[in-house]
Amino acid sequence: MSIFARRKSPPAFDFLPSHFLRLALAEARDAFDEGEVPVGAVVVKEGRVLGRDHNRTKALSDPTAHAELLAITAAAQAIENGRLDGCVLYSTLEPCPMCAGAMVLARIEAVYYAAPDHRYGACGTLFDIPRDPRLAHRVEVYQLAEYAAEAGELMERFFRERRETT
Amino acid sequence: MSIFARRKSPPAFDFLPSHFLRLALAEARDAFDEGEVPVGAVVVKEGRVLGRDHNRTKALSDPTAHAELLAITAAAQAIENGRLDGCVLYSTLEPCPMCAGAMVLARIEAVYYAAPDHRYGACGTLFDIPRDPRLAHRVEVYQLAEYAAEAGELMERFFRERRETT
Repeated sequence: MSIFARRKSPPAFDFLPSHFLRLALAEARDAFDEGEVPVGAVVVKEGRVLGRDHNRTKALSDPTAHAELLAITAAAQAIENGRLDGCVLYSTLEPCPMCAGAMVLARIEAVYYAAPDHRYGACGTLFDIPRDPRLAHRVEVYQLAEYAAEAGELMERFFRERRETT
Repeated sequence: MSIFARRKSPPAFDFLPSHFLRLALAEARDAFDEGEVPVGAVVVKEGRVLGRDHNRTKALSDPTAHAELLAITAAAQAIENGRLDGCVLYSTLEPCPMCAGAMVLARIEAVYYAAPDHRYGACGTLFDIPRDPRLAHRVEVYQLAEYAAEAGELMERFFRERRETT
């Protein structure tokens, strides 16, 4: 049974998913301008942004510096607590195994993403780590399909321009 | 066909797995002394330690501050390169989905771990992310079973003492 069948509506604590996904898209555009893979992420609790960031793997020389991981770290440090109970993560791209694993460890309540990731997607595409019943915590997964094209085109443009200049 | 069947011997570039796993165990004991979950990790290239660390989720208020992730970040920053080609990761515990995903992103060549993790293990126990053929990179997986008891007992002692004091 899918998560959509089990509940009638998304959790009450995230009331403006489009608003926060647009913040994540703004982060992704910042990444693009900095020459980083254009992915952005925001962590929100009860309508308040606790952490937001974009991919910075190049600037930090750090393969783990994905938008989602940095936003989770920022949120946990903001509340000085490694358990992000009741927090919702918004990402322009479906999280990879690393980021999906981090969401479970951080006890994130739900994730909304825009574009699916056919190469690394771990929230239903290649793996489904957030909803795996064997893990100690489950994260609800929603796709905001209306932003998939914008988020995906930013990625395509980035990789096309990178191919042309190298 | 398992990775063990495909090759006659471990990769030539890691010549002292026991030595480096003992370094990881020393990191795990440091974690224990600091009240952190006792897991340690070391990243090695051609016999040289590029990064080593232990779990610091509590001290950093960061659920992503696992030993393996911190050691990967340290190694990448040491060589100022997000691609850890030819690097071997040693960990006292089987990496979780987050850390196994980070190993793939970082292009780690092989991982040696001591104790299996029945709650989060993503290198063969619950998931097998390092060897998934759908991902762009594969990481070889070896278990150094002779250190499993020591690494596992440190974990058990930690959680037993934590239960008794809370």
